[in-house]
Amino acid sequence: MHKMRPENIETNLRWLTNQSHVGGSEESLAMARQIRQKLRDFGFDATQLKRYKVLLSYPDRTKPNTVSFVEGDNTLFHTTGQQYSDLSLLQPYNAYSPNGTVEGKLVYANYGRMEDFKKLVDKGINCTGRIVIMRYGKIYRGDKVEHAAAAGAIGVVLYSDPADYAINGANDTYNVSWWLPRDGVQTGDIRAGMGDPLTPMYPAIENVARLPESEANLPTIPSQPISYKDAEQFLNMLDGQTAPIDWRGGIKNVNYKLDQTDNNDRKMKLEVYNKRLTKDIYNVIGTIRGAVEPDRYVIIGNHRDAWTYGAIDPSSGTACFLELARALGQMVQSGWRPRRTIILASWGAEEFGTIGSTEWVEENINELSEKAVAYLNIDAAVNGNQTLWAGASPHLSQVIQEAAKQVPCPHHEGMTVYQQWAKSLPVEPRKSDSPPKLDILAGTGSDFAAFVLFAGISSIDLQYTYDQNLNVPFYPVYHTQYETFDYMKRFIDPDFSVHLGTVRVLGETALRLADSFVLPMNCSLYADALSTYVSDLETHYGKRNLHDNLFLGYLKHAVSQFSQASETMQEVIATADRTNPLVVRSHNDKLMQMERHMLNPSGLPGRPQYRHLLFAPSQHDSYSGATFPGLVDAIEEGDWVAAHQQLSIITVTIESAAKNMDDGVIKGQ
Amino acid sequence: MHKMRPENIETNLRWLTNQSHVGGSEESLAMARQIRQKLRDFGFDATQLKRYKVLLSYPDRTKPNTVSFVEGDNTLFHTTGQQYSDLSLLQPYNAYSPNGTVEGKLVYANYGRMEDFKKLVDKGINCTGRIVIMRYGKIYRGDKVEHAAAAGAIGVVLYSDPADYAINGANDTYNVSWWLPRDGVQTGDIRAGMGDPLTPMYPAIENVARLPESEANLPTIPSQPISYKDAEQFLNMLDGQTAPIDWRGGIKNVNYKLDQTDNNDRKMKLEVYNKRLTKDIYNVIGTIRGAVEPDRYVIIGNHRDAWTYGAIDPSSGTACFLELARALGQMVQSGWRPRRTIILASWGAEEFGTIGSTEWVEENINELSEKAVAYLNIDAAVNGNQTLWAGASPHLSQVIQEAAKQVPCPHHEGMTVYQQWAKSLPVEPRKSDSPPKLDILAGTGSDFAAFVLFAGISSIDLQYTYDQNLNVPFYPVYHTQYETFDYMKRFIDPDFSVHLGTVRVLGETALRLADSFVLPMNCSLYADALSTYVSDLETHYGKRNLHDNLFLGYLKHAVSQFSQASETMQEVIATADRTNPLVVRSHNDKLMQMERHMLNPSGLPGRPQYRHLLFAPSQHDSYSGATFPGLVDAIEEGDWVAAHQQLSIITVTIESAAKNMDDGVIKGQ
Repeated sequence: MHKMRPENIETNLRWLTNQSHVGGSEESLAMARQIRQKLRDFGFDATQLKRYKVLLSYPDRTKPNTVSFVEGDNTLFHTTGQQYSDLSLLQPYNAYSPNGTVEGKLVYANYGRMEDFKKLVDKGINCTGRIVIMRYGKIYRGDKVEHAAAAGAIGVVLYSDPADYAINGANDTYNVSWWLPRDGVQTGDIRAGMGDPLTPMYPAIENVARLPESEANLPTIPSQPISYKDAEQFLNMLDGQTAPIDWRGGIKNVNYKLDQTDNNDRKMKLEVYNKRLTKDIYNVIGTIRGAVEPDRYVIIGNHRDAWTYGAIDPSSGTACFLELARALGQMVQSGWRPRRTIILASWGAEEFGTIGSTEWVEENINELSEKAVAYLNIDAAVNGNQTLWAGASPHLSQVIQEAAKQVPCPHHEGMTVYQQWAKSLPVEPRKSDSPPKLDILAGTGSDFAAFVLFAGISSIDLQYTYDQNLNVPFYPVYHTQYETFDYMKRFIDPDFSVHLGTVRVLGETALRLADSFVLPMNCSLYADALSTYVSDLETHYGKRNLHDNLFLGYLKHAVSQFSQASETMQEVIATADRTNPLVVRSHNDKLMQMERHMLNPSGLPGRPQYRHLLFAPSQHDSYSGATFPGLVDAIEEGDWVAAHQQLSIITVTIESAAKNMDDGVIKGQ
Repeated sequence: MHKMRPENIETNLRWLTNQSHVGGSEESLAMARQIRQKLRDFGFDATQLKRYKVLLSYPDRTKPNTVSFVEGDNTLFHTTGQQYSDLSLLQPYNAYSPNGTVEGKLVYANYGRMEDFKKLVDKGINCTGRIVIMRYGKIYRGDKVEHAAAAGAIGVVLYSDPADYAINGANDTYNVSWWLPRDGVQTGDIRAGMGDPLTPMYPAIENVARLPESEANLPTIPSQPISYKDAEQFLNMLDGQTAPIDWRGGIKNVNYKLDQTDNNDRKMKLEVYNKRLTKDIYNVIGTIRGAVEPDRYVIIGNHRDAWTYGAIDPSSGTACFLELARALGQMVQSGWRPRRTIILASWGAEEFGTIGSTEWVEENINELSEKAVAYLNIDAAVNGNQTLWAGASPHLSQVIQEAAKQVPCPHHEGMTVYQQWAKSLPVEPRKSDSPPKLDILAGTGSDFAAFVLFAGISSIDLQYTYDQNLNVPFYPVYHTQYETFDYMKRFIDPDFSVHLGTVRVLGETALRLADSFVLPMNCSLYADALSTYVSDLETHYGKRNLHDNLFLGYLKHAVSQFSQASETMQEVIATADRTNPLVVRSHNDKLMQMERHMLNPSGLPGRPQYRHLLFAPSQHDSYSGATFPGLVDAIEEGDWVAAHQQLSIITVTIESAAKNMDDGVIKGQ
């Protein structure tokens, strides 16, 4: 494809990071308009600026959120309320936290996982009426707050512990190295679900009915993030039981204790003044019309909104996205056109719960269900410089690998991105020729969520990342005031070669999907994944336990039917008459639609937006995924009747998908 | 197409009616096997015998259901319990009525409509603890029973009144004329909903989880049908207020009264011994593979099961169906092949709630959603000899009319079926060139129900019928012991020319759908229908009333968007490059999918099987249809918040369908 240049990506990133552009802001709209203009200038056939009216949440500039320790009328310690020195930024907050002032004794709940709260119960510590302080990491922050609320807490304080964000201690941090400084604070939303909170399942366009806020799925107790500099003060107020070893973080002067047992009236006081506001948000949609099958869409998306400067999340992605757009536009101008239509989408308000992408999918669900071949996502595209990382629908793993084999590794002469990837993240570390690991896309961490989980559109999420053996939650300055151009330039990708490598893999993948005669989707790999999920289920819940309560025979049979049907289909495709465009189209339709058939139109029990029967966010962590989620939930609740029902729905759905590959309706003797 | 012959149809009907073949019976399975063999012999490419395990309901041969009048231990009058003299038939019953014996004072509730029960309340008559006698007609019998149960009744007796079934009195009946004799009893099911009661939404195959019967949607009070000969005895026990004039039926010796007011202990006693049994039912599926687009299906269906001999319902249809199958097979054997695949389906257990067809649609929902072009239904294909009657998805009206123009009228030399149809059932009776009326398909009266209402597959239902000005519920011997070959031969279609005319219209329509290069589906007609539904809404509920509570502007705008988009699309299709098969395929896909886009995947509120936003059975009468059913229900309940929500869902869905026709996602400046 047309030559993409690192210096262009660098210029893009410099522009994108020169000011904050949070979702719903004037700055984000201005940037949307500029991106639209760029796509036009690049030679795109059509562009749209799509608006939605959605519920966002902001801190109040005039009344900063504060966390303090009080004793009667005395304030012993309080955060400044202006934790970012650049006052043009939104001060750190947890979006959608309700406002309110609460006071209570403090409890420390480690990462705020279910198991952490369970341990507190085991140790006799009751969270009722208390404020819970937790460290960021391991699970989605919104789930931490939800777990705390379920445990009876009245407020939450979140902080970034150096054990997770500055593992060499406070002296080895930005701007000496890439680790998080003492005053770094991570902003982020704490809501469950996808899209505008007031219009689940439907697009937040003018005429759509809104839920009253009281009926929307929104957090119920106030929450506020702080730095580890501030957290030190609060953690030192704890005087109760000593925390278990693996609960102890890395703040030097803190002996991690579990709770406050003093009899005086010292309390934490949490004041949150966030406002929920209805705002306009914008997606930019640009199109390059397909030459042969214009009604088949390969969609590439990246969000535009950023909490602070967004140098990594999302602007490393946006910088790549814009260079890819330029290259594609150049190719069109020089006479080329893809077989299928390519759509580029710049999403608004992803940080508030993948809102822009979800509303767009909800608005265009019919058109996308019929015409979308695949969705490719880049978000924090370059958050490290060691290796490619990818999550994808299982039958897309081959096309990504093939693409990655075409791209030289940014840092190792003579190696490809694929080789470095397979080396860094091997499926089987002991094998020298192991392929790289591919994650499932089941969480709500970025804009693929509505595509996969609501619409059943096969998707890919790509990024270049750091050494995963570090075992840290994410790149250290994630969602903080330190996500700057300078940080990227000095500590991740000085020459933007990693950006270039990433966007080349993205571009190669997109072109293969848009231009191949037969779609590069290998359903046998999907079958293999299904088998693995069944084995995982048996391993996780115990064969014995499962078999005493559920009969998995039909599911296994359905998976083997699916496996058989996909192999037969691949063979038929391999020998198909390629001179007959309708024959090829018919095969491609089956490939394109296969994953759509894994949807249950009614959604998972109690979760109508999550319609994929194989993947959904775990109920304990929205960022990580569960396979067979409805079944797993029922098993975890010990409801074997519901489990049987979910198992039967999954089985019949896999059978039905297999039958379609096999033209089951018109087969016979 | 290949010559179809009336004598073959007659032979078919003679065979089909020589014994009873109720759903779930050995006889019905034997017939399924024979039909499958016929399709094979005719030259079909593939045939299947598809089995489902479903909950049916039968009377007990050893313990007949009886209705009696008792006074203490004395029985004053009782039905024989063997109301059909042919003991090889199932004795008349209401399928799915629970068994049980109840005694109570009698109330007469006319047709058992909501308005009838309301009138009883107005007249101070309480149904609580009573048995309600009602006449058949106007609405679905199951709704009568449900209304009675809602009014507090403990049992129901249904009968056929001569005012509706023998309008010239008891002397002018079969076998002097076609009217219902005194001892005719109409059997029929009384359940709401489609398909197997225990597996709503999913196919009743081996491994699917079943609801317990207690959680299924099944009738709650016993019910039994009787003849007007027997009804006379019971109606004469009524001694209360005189019934309103339009409640009075045509039994000579009866003065229609509303209730029993006597103080003695005379009571009606109803004994029902029905059994609900899990049974195997069978569909026969035969396929003629399409030459050019084998992955596009035109489906023709007819049910096979009959309550008694079924000469009209369904065997007049089955006789036609088999002759059509023979003709198509002949054409294939002589070298022809349709462009698209043609599927013939002989459904099992329609009489129990369109079970065979619904289970098949539920099992193959993914494949059908992708590949089904249209479904054509014939059931009681020849129930009269005056005129064609059709119900259809609005954009299919043209293709039926065109087909009917090709077929000579069976009874009027020089006229076409179309001309006779337009004359008998004109849209605008005052205009000489008015087109014929086309009904909507929104009820659950036959096997199109799951296709249209669950799957959004555009459908047609065809029949030849009697003079609709007679204003009678249906052909008089419907579902009685008098549905015999002799009856058909003597009183409806002696030379089987009406059958021939009907099946020729069906065949012509099917071939146009299967063979046309561009699908004969006119979306502008769908747009017109949408406009009409909006006007009807305003007329019915009052512009003023609606406008005070709901803003219809967005809906009207969406309809005009849809109208615009369909016109543009028709123009684009008219001028499309017909040498490019992918261009034509792409247009045809839009036409085929258009109605699918009217589905709401979650279904109507509380009715998940009904997913079509434009059509559903009326909540008061499952046989008649409501347009905008979710909206209408909310308005009728006076719940304007719900109405607003439904309106918004309908609006956004129509907009989305319009956008897809217009390739909205990739449009732009």
